[in-house]
Parts: sequence; C-alpha cells; structure tokens
Amino acid sequence: QEDLFVFAGPCVIESRDLCFEVAEFLRELSDRLKTGIVFKASFDKANRSSINSFRGPGIDEGLRILQEVKQEFQLPVVTDIHLPSQAATVSEVADCLQIPAFLCRQTDLLAAAAETGAAVNVKKGQFLSPWEMKNVVCKLRESGCEKVLLCERGTFFGYNRLVNDMTAIGEMKNLGCPVIFDATHSTQQPGGLGTSSAGARESAPVLAASAAAAGADGMFFEIHPNPEDALCDSACMMRMNDFEKTIKRCREIFKIVRQNDE
Amino acid sequence: QEDLFVFAGPCVIESRDLCFEVAEFLRELSDRLKTGIVFKASFDKANRSSINSFRGPGIDEGLRILQEVKQEFQLPVVTDIHLPSQAATVSEVADCLQIPAFLCRQTDLLAAAAETGAAVNVKKGQFLSPWEMKNVVCKLRESGCEKVLLCERGTFFGYNRLVNDMTAIGEMKNLGCPVIFDATHSTQQPGGLGTSSAGARESAPVLAASAAAAGADGMFFEIHPNPEDALCDSACMMRMNDFEKTIKRCREIFKIVRQNDE
Amino acid sequence: QEDLFVFAGPCVIESRDLCFEVAEFLRELSDRLKTGIVFKASFDKANRSSINSFRGPGIDEGLRILQEVKQEFQLPVVTDIHLPSQAATVSEVADCLQIPAFLCRQTDLLAAAAETGAAVNVKKGQFLSPWEMKNVVCKLRESGCEKVLLCERGTFFGYNRLVNDMTAIGEMKNLGCPVIFDATHSTQQPGGLGTSSAGARESAPVLAASAAAAGADGMFFEIHPNPEDALCDSACMMRMNDFEKTIKRCREIFKIVRQNDE
Amino acid sequence: QEDLFVFAGPCVIESRDLCFEVAEFLRELSDRLKTGIVFKASFDKANRSSINSFRGPGIDEGLRILQEVKQEFQLPVVTDIHLPSQAATVSEVADCLQIPAFLCRQTDLLAAAAETGAAVNVKKGQFLSPWEMKNVVCKLRESGCEKVLLCERGTFFGYNRLVNDMTAIGEMKNLGCPVIFDATHSTQQPGGLGTSSAGARESAPVLAASAAAAGADGMFFEIHPNPEDALCDSACMMRMNDFEKTIKRCREIFKIVRQNDE
Repeated sequence: QEDLFVFAGPCVIESRDLCFEVAEFLRELSDRLKTGIVFKASFDKANRSSINSFRGPGIDEGLRILQEVKQEFQLPVVTDIHLPSQAATVSEVADCLQIPAFLCRQTDLLAAAAETGAAVNVKKGQFLSPWEMKNVVCKLRESGCEKVLLCERGTFFGYNRLVNDMTAIGEMKNLGCPVIFDATHSTQQPGGLGTSSAGARESAPVLAASAAAAGADGMFFEIHPNPEDALCDSACMMRMNDFEKTIKRCREIFKIVRQNDE
Repeated sequence: QEDLFVFAGPCVIESRDLCFEVAEFLRELSDRLKTGIVFKASFDKANRSSINSFRGPGIDEGLRILQEVKQEFQLPVVTDIHLPSQAATVSEVADCLQIPAFLCRQTDLLAAAAETGAAVNVKKGQFLSPWEMKNVVCKLRESGCEKVLLCERGTFFGYNRLVNDMTAIGEMKNLGCPVIFDATHSTQQPGGLGTSSAGARESAPVLAASAAAAGADGMFFEIHPNPEDALCDSACMMRMNDFEKTIKRCREIFKIVRQNDE
Repeated sequence: QEDLFVFAGPCVIESRDLCFEVAEFLRELSDRLKTGIVFKASFDKANRSSINSFRGPGIDEGLRILQEVKQEFQLPVVTDIHLPSQAATVSEVADCLQIPAFLCRQTDLLAAAAETGAAVNVKKGQFLSPWEMKNVVCKLRESGCEKVLLCERGTFFGYNRLVNDMTAIGEMKNLGCPVIFDATHSTQQPGGLGTSSAGARESAPVLAASAAAAGADGMFFEIHPNPEDALCDSACMMRMNDFEKTIKRCREIFKIVRQNDE
Repeated sequence: QEDLFVFAGPCVIESRDLCFEVAEFLRELSDRLKTGIVFKASFDKANRSSINSFRGPGIDEGLRILQEVKQEFQLPVVTDIHLPSQAATVSEVADCLQIPAFLCRQTDLLAAAAETGAAVNVKKGQFLSPWEMKNVVCKLRESGCEKVLLCERGTFFGYNRLVNDMTAIGEMKNLGCPVIFDATHSTQQPGGLGTSSAGARESAPVLAASAAAAGADGMFFEIHPNPEDALCDSACMMRMNDFEKTIKRCREIFKIVRQNDE
C-alpha cells in the first residue's frame, strides 16, 4: 500500500443536496491530493440514542442517492447495514458494506455481508478487545469474504467516554486486514447529552495523526459543511473546511512510518 | 412486590430432554419455595464468539419446545429475539421477550418487541451507563410496551472483563422499571478463551447476594445439570444443585432490604 | 468473627469539639447495638486535590486529641500515616495504623507500620487489582505485622469515577485478611469538582449493604453531624443521623451471609 | 521549542558500570543526532511490587554515581524522589527531580521538590484524569517551581493493564507545561507476573510515534544493553540497540506536527 486511503462523508444521508455538496468537495480533494477517497453516508441510523432522532431516508431512497453520487462524482461508496436481509440489495450500489460496532458480533449479519462478495468494513465493538476481532474476521472469511477491513473507533472507558488504545491498530493488522481509524466517532461521548451523544470534534485531528503514527492504513471521518446543523453526531463531526489540513498531515506521518518500516 | 422473582434456565435449548429436566427441577423448586420462576432458554445464539459454536435449534423447533415446557410445567417462559421480524411469532409462546445486551439500542428491534404487548426484558449493554437506559425505556414505552424490565449483566471494564456497578441497580429502578440481576453472565470474561468466553461461576452466588442487597427486584441465572458439558456459556453457568441455596440467601437479603425501605 | 466491626469518624480532625461530638455518638451506639466501633480521624490530609485545602491540625495536636478521645470514650482509634518516620510515634496512640490508597505500594511506609506491632489497615489502591494486594500483604508480614486488614474503597473506572468490584472482597479475603469496605470513599468522584472531589453520599448505604452481602468483615464510614460543613470529603461523607439504620441493615445481612457459609 | 527532547536511561542504578555504558551510548547519540538527552536512573525503587525485588544502591551511593555520569559525559541528570526530605540533597546533583506517578498528589513531596528550584517532572498518576493534573501544577507553582514538566505514562484500564489516552497530551499542554511521553512504562502490565509487572516492550516504539503525533514535547524511555537481565522493569524496557531508530522516527513526526501547527 503506497498511500493512506480515506473514508469520508456526512454521517447520514440528510438530503440529496447535502450528499452532492460533500461529494463534490471530496472529488476535487481526491484529484488534487491524488489520494483515494470513498464516500460514506448512512441510509438509516438504526440505533440512535433516542427514538425521536432523525434516522435517514430509508434504504430505497438512500440507495438511489448513493447511486447518483457514485455516478456523478465517480467515488466508490460505503454504507452500513443493520439486518442480514439488507446485505444483497445494498451491495448492488455500495462498494463496501459497513458493520456497525454494536452489531460486530451478529453472526448472520456478518455472513450475509460476506456472501455479497463486497468488501466489508467492521467497526470494532466498544466492548471488545482488539484480539477478539479475530473471531469476527473468521466469521467473515469462512463466509467467503475476501476483503475484510477493520476499524478502530474507540473502546468503552468509564461511563459516557471512549478511549483509543493505539496498540489496537497493530493488534488488528496482525489479523491480516487493513485497519482504518475512525477519527470522528472516536471523539464521541456516548450518552453525554442525555438523549444524544456529546463529542469533541477538536480532538479528531490529533487522534487521526496519532493513529497514522501507530500504523493505521486508512482514515475515516464524518464531515459536514456545517456540523452544528448536522442531523446526527453533530458534536463529533468535522468541519469540511478543516479537512484538507488534517488529511495532509496524516499522509505525511503515514509516509514516515512506512519508510521506517522498510 | 413481596418477593424476589427469578428467571432461570439452561442458556440455549440444547434439546427437549434438557429443557424438561431443568423445567421439572424449577417447577418443584417454585412450589416448595413458593417463589415465582420464569423459564429461560434461547432458540438461537446469534452472536457467539465463534462461527463454529453451537447456536441452538432455530426458531421453529425452539418455540415448539418452549411451548411444551410451558404447558407441561406451567412455567412462564422468556426467550431472546435478534431481529424485528421474530418478535410477533415469538410472543405467541413467550410471556416475556428478551433483548440481548449488544442489541439494546436497536430501535426497530425494541419497537417490534414493544408492539407485541408482551413484557420486555432488556439487558443493559456492556457499553452503556445505567442512565443511558432511559432512552431504551423511552423507545419501548413510546412503542406501546407497558411492562419494561431492565437487567444488569456487567459493564465493560478493561479487556476481557466485566464489572458490576451495584449503584446501577438503583439508577435503573429510578426509571420506573423492575431491575433483574443476571448473576451468571456477570461472571463472564468475554473472549477469555480465544474462541469463546471464559467465566467464573463461583462468583455468581456472591454477586447475586450483593445485587439483592443493592435492591434488585429479580434474579437471572443460567443453570445446567452439568455445566461442564453445556453447549454455551459453560464457564459461567451455575450447577443446578447449587441453585437452591443461592436463591434462598438472595430472598432473605431481599426481605431485609425491603423491610428497611419501608 | 461473630459480628461485623465498624470503623467510623469524621475524616479529618477538624477540632477537638467535633471529635468529641462524634465519639460520644459512636460510644453510645456501640453500647446500644453491642457492636465494636473503632474511631477514625486523620491528623493530616497529605494528598488533598488542592494545595489550598484544609489539611488538619498536624501530628502533635492531632495525636493529643486522639489520645483524649480514646481515654474519654474508651474507643480504639485508627489513623493514617504518610511517611515512614510517623509510624512509631503514631502507634503510641493509635491501635491501628492506616495506609492511604495512593501509598499502598510504598515499601518503606509499609515496613515502618509493620514494625510498630500495631494492626495495619491498607486501603487497596484505586490502580490495583485485588490480587496485587498479595504483594502488599507480603511486605507487611515479612516486616513483622501480624494483624493485616485490607480495605476496598473503589477502583478507577474511567475519569473521575470509581467502581466497586464486589468480587474483590472475596479475592482479598483469600489472602487471609479481614476485609473492610469503605462505603463513603467508594462514592467519591475524584476531581469531580475541579479543585476537590465530588461524591454521592446517598450511595453509601446501598454499597455498604452490597458489600456486606459479598462477605465484607467490617465497614468503614466517614460521618459528620453536618456533612455540608465538613472540611474534607464533604460530598461523600454520611450524615451522623443516618448512620444507625445503615449499620443495622449491614449487620443483618452479615448474619445471613455467615449463617449460609456454615 | 525546535526539537523533541529525550529522557533516557537504565531505570535503576544497577551499577556504576551499567550507568557508564548507557551514558556513553547516549552521549554519542546526542552528539550525532544533535538532540538534547537527559540521563535518567533511580537510586531507589521505593514501590516495587514485591518486598524482595532489587531496590537500587540507595541515595548516597546513587547520587555519587549520577554525579560521575554528569561530569564524565556532560549529560544533565533526572532522578526520582520519594520523600520530602530527599528533595534538597538530590537537587544538588540532579538537574530535574521526578515525582513518581503513585506519589503525584503528595502535597509535601511536591512542595519540597518545588522549593529546590530545580525543574520537576511529575508523572501523571494512573488514577487521575489529565485535567486533575491542574491541581498538581498549582501545588508546584505555588511552592515556587518555575519549570514544571508533566509526563503521560498510562492510565488504569481494567486490571493489570494501562491505556494511553492520546488526548491527555493536549489536555496537559493546555496547563502551560511541556509534556513528556513515557513510552516504556506505558507498556507495563502492572502485577501481570504475580510478584512483578509484565510489559510489552515491542509496543514502545509505536506508542512513542503515536504520542509524538499527538503533540508530545519530549520522550522518556528506559533502555538497557540487555533488557532481559535488567533488575527492574525488565519486560517493558527497550533494547539500547533499538533506540536510535525510534528516536529518529519520533523526531520526524515531531517536526511534521510543529510545521503544521504554525
């Protein structure tokens, strides 16, 4: 692998317009920096803190928008699934299926994702040691998945707080999978606002740099033109305008680490 | 509430014979101790550590056996569901639907369970503070559930280990729900054996007594005539013969606590 | 051991008058309940959060007051030491020397305490597993201490919070020492108020009951006629008037546990 | 600050010969890399897990050796103190006094260190949030210390394990102090070997790089020509021959981070 790859996008598909705005931004950035970027957005947030939170447009409308983004901006697309029955349909549009952290041990969901033949990105559960991800990888591989990606997004550390154990990145790389670092969800303070999660977006660039230095192969960021108005994960999402600087720094660190590893 | 209630059974429906053996034992104990016991067994273990682990007989065969147990031994029955689509079918047999800890934030699963009209027992996620269960309770109540039970089964504390915060019991009772203490899963050491969880069954009676003293309304135990041979959670399951002594002690403590509260 | 023993007192020696007021209360309670009570107060708080916090009257004045309390109310006395050089002097007055949690691994302090011949109560460090207390016990025993007591007062669980692992009580009893449960410091939220610790005194009775059920041999409480005005640990200290009810409940639970153990 | 500074040395003063060997190595490295290195070794390990562990030569002999190292190799020296009474004597030799993590809240120790006029490096307690170090800094500054350094060396995360929260580095820098990252003690698994701590020295280079990316101003490593034979912290100490590569990588990352911050 010669360069850090990037997953980025606006958390949930708030609207076609928002997706197009972010995708256009990412397309331009990808060309200019000559770095691979995968567009990420969710069609359904199935485990929001509160039952009254915005969940997204649903699978049909959501996939339609993702398909348009893909064609219009020539960006590969990643989105998450929540039920085994969604895997096949979603894989018709998405290049990579994502398994949410809370669901990373649901055997049928993993198997259904694997059977599509798509790449599968699994977020490490906040309740799992990195070495327990070995069993997750086995479930996927035995079900036929050939492109497993693992994602560090924080580990439960006392109530309403996560911590990133940077040694987890190497532990998971030892399972033979590229490891992505989810810089924005790592700053989440789950349940910190009562009916929604708090966050600390100002920590995302620092954690991203730190994870790149620890050997991460890819970076995951949720970005938004105006995070304060975002309909989901507002507190931990990164401002679109702050994104380029962070990506550049991570890539420089990535290169130093890879040179040293040779 | 005048007495501690009890959920007990053999984790997974290993066979009709095993279920009958355990149910007969519980029926007799319930009569002799004059205490309410709900029979618990799973038809599917949908998130085992390893893809090669035994999962159970599946929903059709599983519900048939639970129905037989119910009729033959006149015990109410609780079992867990993993997908929204299972809720209605399962509620035709089960008196109480249980939501697994990893799934306790899946909005659709909670809503589907609530809509059956059955009682719903939600295990607190190992990755949640007790006060975040407020949102879970809201999801259920807004979806029509009138009998919400919450269950403490340990909180993530460093890799491969859980801890029970006994103040969580009171926190969750303040949400207006009876709180059950899952004494056997609380001794789990997740991932402790590589491809399965370790456990410390000898701690279950101590933790149960401790939780009764902290105000738990009910107790949950997985029991087996021969835990070493159990097909799931072998390391943390309680020996059937050790069960009566533990229940008696918990009830005595329960009574002291209630007297003092008056 | 036939009954639960109790360590109680006003955290720091705020004044001779306060000590006398609390000691008189404890003397009367001890007689009426026929239970052994040891008077606890510190002459110096050597590790307050802030340099501007009240520290106490110092060793000379402090020991004079403890000596008076001892004679006047015929209560044994426990107090904590912070430097090896204090051990011998303090042991002339105190029946039991206490080692603060942060200092529980300081070899010279343990050795000096052991060499006095007094009983030594060591608080388990918030940063130690219960089984690491084996090394602490060894240090004391090899230095001649014949009466080692261990004290559970919470384990670090995320920032600014402690949790009590109730299985720790049994782990430490297995080292051959009586185990005391410090109910009031267990409710501490270290650093929770910026320049001092927050606390949740309302949890102390619940945790105490829970620890009694888990097998604790003794209980430790900091009490005050008016906790809001206390000069140290105000937020977690128990109101003197609430104390009797809590002690009674703990003793009842203690008896049930011991009967069952026979 | 233009370059990353380095504290390094052999944990405990095993012998004059060992100190000279390590100091000669560091002198040469410092000259060749043109980077500032402070020699670190302890004259007494006052809180070893076991009472039978090697503690060092003691203060008199220890300071003599440190003085020789200083003169012979022209390296500044840092060493840790455990009692207030040691501060003045030690400051006659040491350029920087170090406060051990367990003792970081002992007011008198901090005050005594501050009063010497030397720089003071305080290791963040494993039981403290980074923002609680504000009180530690206040204690030092109010006692006259003008050069406070803070050191991240891991936070308690479940039994027998530490985790580094990389956001702690920025939190502590916000207190106006340079922050050092202790890469080798961060890999400690306290109590992991029963009567001593286990460790994972192979993680030290990764964590060091990660901390440099997170903004650390300095690095702390314990190094040894032959770590397997080291008399203290053998499991987490770094091999002398692996040191140069790690330092170089950290400096490169340091420079990227500082350029970006401009």
